[in-house]
Amino acid sequence: MELSELRIIDLKESILADNDADADRLREETKDQNVYYVNVMSSPGAGKTTTLLGLTGKLRDDYKIGILEADIDGDVDTKTMLDAGLRAVQLHTGGMCHLDADMSRQSLREIGAEDLDLVILENVGNLVCPAEFDTGADLDLVILSVPEGDDKPLKYPLMFEKADVVLLNKIDAMEAFDFDVDRFREYVAMRNPDAPVFLISAATGEGLDAVAEWLRGKVDPKIR
Amino acid sequence: MELSELRIIDLKESILADNDADADRLREETKDQNVYYVNVMSSPGAGKTTTLLGLTGKLRDDYKIGILEADIDGDVDTKTMLDAGLRAVQLHTGGMCHLDADMSRQSLREIGAEDLDLVILENVGNLVCPAEFDTGADLDLVILSVPEGDDKPLKYPLMFEKADVVLLNKIDAMEAFDFDVDRFREYVAMRNPDAPVFLISAATGEGLDAVAEWLRGKVDPKIR
Repeated sequence: MELSELRIIDLKESILADNDADADRLREETKDQNVYYVNVMSSPGAGKTTTLLGLTGKLRDDYKIGILEADIDGDVDTKTMLDAGLRAVQLHTGGMCHLDADMSRQSLREIGAEDLDLVILENVGNLVCPAEFDTGADLDLVILSVPEGDDKPLKYPLMFEKADVVLLNKIDAMEAFDFDVDRFREYVAMRNPDAPVFLISAATGEGLDAVAEWLRGKVDPKIR
Repeated sequence: MELSELRIIDLKESILADNDADADRLREETKDQNVYYVNVMSSPGAGKTTTLLGLTGKLRDDYKIGILEADIDGDVDTKTMLDAGLRAVQLHTGGMCHLDADMSRQSLREIGAEDLDLVILENVGNLVCPAEFDTGADLDLVILSVPEGDDKPLKYPLMFEKADVVLLNKIDAMEAFDFDVDRFREYVAMRNPDAPVFLISAATGEGLDAVAEWLRGKVDPKIR
């Protein structure tokens, strides 16, 4: 028996490092399949599903689209997508609040990504843990809604650091809330100076054309 | 675009299947190293640390013992183990409430399991998720304490199904609680008819000799 110093092993760091490498492999695999993979993250109720319905409505004539609906349980959003005539698969994480790269790979296989141009993952509704795991997506799209408040980039730094693009949803409700758009843009820029911020209302459709155009500019170079 | 039926993919099941296979490999690896690996699970506050201090006190003259202390954060238990002169390493799971086989493998490497006879993992204090992931241990030891109530095998079925042995701790406090030991034994047997139940008080040391003897009977055949 020997005495030893206090040693602390951070298990999650090694898991995350493994996952990062696997996520890079997945991006190569989807490149070979000519499929663009988008990871959509937000709090519950920020409007992921409505936003995706609006966006896919503008993009579905040009791209073969598949939707991955990740939830701890339930299948409401997948039914909504199927009712809209979209190819959609429900993913159950069984209590886990994130998807990692290998879960993504399995999901892309299940939805038949090789026949698609664009796969959009609606991640588990949560501003913390989904940001910790690289899903292997080409683009991380974060949605915040006006009622959540303009200070969220300060409170959830990792989510906004990871965001390649930020959609501010429910701008039609702006008057009812004390939300300062300029301050929000500043806070986003503190975390991630390169992420464009689009103001939208998924309910009215306002601002979605601009997002769809921007997305085309990301998708086309990879899949064409 | 095509319509499809509602399909649900259970991501966790495939993760668990991968982990099960990896856990079997780890048991082979520890067999080659002549080390016996015990996974200790309980609620927070059931007395894992005090029980392990008592048990290792009875076993440390005969075995080279290492303790893995898994916590979401903190290092109190590891300091306790080091103060007792035990080889111990703190594991941080970074928010995750379980250890899987690969996290075990990494931890065994960090503590230098190849030089030890017996490694005991004090898992994250939780009666749900640690039971879902096979750590690759040779033995799953579950501790329940009297104040938690005799109905816990009904409420946490998986934990008691997985238990190879159950220790009922804090029996010195039995009079203060409405705990029916016979009923508890029945409930444990419903989940797992093969698991012996030991009554102990880690605080007074009562019952620990019997547990230590039983453990020797498990450890010796693997490492000698």
